[in-house]
Amino acid sequence: MKQLPIIALLTDFGTVDWYVASLRGVLVSRAPKARIIDITHEIPPYDVIAAALTLSACVEFFPRKTVFLVVVDPAVGTRRSLLAMEVNGRFFVGPDNGLLSPVASSAKRYAAVHLTKPSFWLKPVSRTFHGRDILAPVAAYLAKGGALSRLGTVARHLHPSPIPPCHSYPKRQEGSIVHIDRFGNLLTNIPATKKPVAVLFRQRRLPVVSSYATAPKGKLVALVGSLGMWELAVREESAAASFRIKPGEAVILRS
Amino acid sequence: MKQLPIIALLTDFGTVDWYVASLRGVLVSRAPKARIIDITHEIPPYDVIAAALTLSACVEFFPRKTVFLVVVDPAVGTRRSLLAMEVNGRFFVGPDNGLLSPVASSAKRYAAVHLTKPSFWLKPVSRTFHGRDILAPVAAYLAKGGALSRLGTVARHLHPSPIPPCHSYPKRQEGSIVHIDRFGNLLTNIPATKKPVAVLFRQRRLPVVSSYATAPKGKLVALVGSLGMWELAVREESAAASFRIKPGEAVILRS
Amino acid sequence: MKQLPIIALLTDFGTVDWYVASLRGVLVSRAPKARIIDITHEIPPYDVIAAALTLSACVEFFPRKTVFLVVVDPAVGTRRSLLAMEVNGRFFVGPDNGLLSPVASSAKRYAAVHLTKPSFWLKPVSRTFHGRDILAPVAAYLAKGGALSRLGTVARHLHPSPIPPCHSYPKRQEGSIVHIDRFGNLLTNIPATKKPVAVLFRQRRLPVVSSYATAPKGKLVALVGSLGMWELAVREESAAASFRIKPGEAVILRS
Repeated sequence: MKQLPIIALLTDFGTVDWYVASLRGVLVSRAPKARIIDITHEIPPYDVIAAALTLSACVEFFPRKTVFLVVVDPAVGTRRSLLAMEVNGRFFVGPDNGLLSPVASSAKRYAAVHLTKPSFWLKPVSRTFHGRDILAPVAAYLAKGGALSRLGTVARHLHPSPIPPCHSYPKRQEGSIVHIDRFGNLLTNIPATKKPVAVLFRQRRLPVVSSYATAPKGKLVALVGSLGMWELAVREESAAASFRIKPGEAVILRS
Repeated sequence: MKQLPIIALLTDFGTVDWYVASLRGVLVSRAPKARIIDITHEIPPYDVIAAALTLSACVEFFPRKTVFLVVVDPAVGTRRSLLAMEVNGRFFVGPDNGLLSPVASSAKRYAAVHLTKPSFWLKPVSRTFHGRDILAPVAAYLAKGGALSRLGTVARHLHPSPIPPCHSYPKRQEGSIVHIDRFGNLLTNIPATKKPVAVLFRQRRLPVVSSYATAPKGKLVALVGSLGMWELAVREESAAASFRIKPGEAVILRS
Repeated sequence: MKQLPIIALLTDFGTVDWYVASLRGVLVSRAPKARIIDITHEIPPYDVIAAALTLSACVEFFPRKTVFLVVVDPAVGTRRSLLAMEVNGRFFVGPDNGLLSPVASSAKRYAAVHLTKPSFWLKPVSRTFHGRDILAPVAAYLAKGGALSRLGTVARHLHPSPIPPCHSYPKRQEGSIVHIDRFGNLLTNIPATKKPVAVLFRQRRLPVVSSYATAPKGKLVALVGSLGMWELAVREESAAASFRIKPGEAVILRS
């Protein structure tokens, strides 16, 4: 089967207002054959870390040529740059605030441009909604097979990633909680690349299990989650709520 | 590219139950080629003002021939009328409770009919879910290119708009807060057609800025939002929560 | 019009994280022509009753050949079985925890298999996300017209339905509240097959009305809802909140 172009949306717009609908309207008007797929619109307002994590978590499951339209843009209306980028045959459009940087740095190479050509944008461009007026028309253009290079000038440096790094030593990885999911499971930034001797949290050693359902009830446990990263969890409970855990708390893995 | 028919959904059904899914099932069964695009399903229950505003805010970004299926219908099961309407080549289906009136009155002309022909509906029609049983099949019919006039009798008068009006005087516009968005920004009903001398709220003059990000932190400011209307906002904060502002409060613009 | 294959999604993943996006990515990669339709992702975490009810409530509005991908799977990672099933020309994929049982038992016959053939799955399969790694690829395969029988071994017994039963006697039906919807309306498990003499709740007789809008304001009433089941409701109010009613409370219908 021939693949229709796909535009995947990731924003902090919520689903209560007309903001996402305006994006969708621009997209279906300008790229009538493109399929619009939502990643999420529930990124907490202005939370660039959550958006960068969410994007990284699902990119690889989408086919080549997918265009990711990513709008978490607290600096809209200032001189921050807007980007279009190609990585491994997939396209990304969004502000240059670190959102797209983890995807870029996960690949051997990437191509990125600053969006500087107003001929690709809506007219007039508002001061407060560049997602609708600049990014959506650019995403539609890429979905129709348009050339990245025509959209603006080459971007040689991207804003650094907002995701806190995991520090790796020969027998120790020092990471932290970077995300709480809707089940209250706690995602860390520690990749599951080494066999652990111990997973330490709040100066205690956590039991390591293979899946949520094999954990003893009521206990905080560590396991390798579906992204291949270490997670903390409580079986059929919110680990975040039950143990009052917030993003940023340290997790240490001894190997 | 040829445009597939589009059906855009706007309801107060929420996304927790099966109500939206039932609409979608009827639509894909009866108009298999139509694309279903969500505007939102998070209109507060029975809130006809929010629905009318949301519809008006995004209509123009959708292509001609889009069918808008709009269901906020607290009077379902009573003798209130259901409408189908054409405005500027776009179609609208919903109850005659004011929902569709701002779109009608924004255009030079509109055509509307009362839905009186049961042959276009599901059988049987429930007493509590006319969105699924009457409006969705009618929207599917219009999406397939069906004629508006066949659906019922001409509607000569629509229920008045529920959105509070802005009062305009030569050097003064008296409006109010009509909507709070997910960021806590406060939308007014005052169009940005005049250069302001002062924007007044709670007897104070507000600083006027060009975008959210150029506002001083912590200050309530006025700006022209992405709909071309005046808004009140606080940079990267909820203006509604920080200043305990509710819809209905007066805003005055001196020009 | 020829029907494109439809995959309808029902999960407890929420819409905040990347879980639904990962499913969608797998589906559009493997079944590029399939249309993805959301039922809901807001099933309360691990709530198999709510998921089973929601699925039953909307199945019949979807066309034949629709593939329902249903993931509420608290036992992921244990030896619980995963199923694919055909009922009345529609397909269902999900864990064997009762989710799919009401649909199966509503029909004269069904065909079901245990998913035992890893050649249809993603590689590697994670321990915590079988929705993405097993169920989504299987749903994509069915959407492309694949044969149910090839997916595994025949399932002769399904896990029993989690929905509490309604007990029927010659002049009396004893049921209970099984679901609260976003409007606070209370769905019971009592089908509206008999003319009622009285609807009893908390030892009081409730007024019976024909639609929400014809109820007296502020009164708890009984009516036949859009699923053909008895409901309790308060006009333009949340009956659940106003009368502090929870799922499980008894409702009795005398006829």
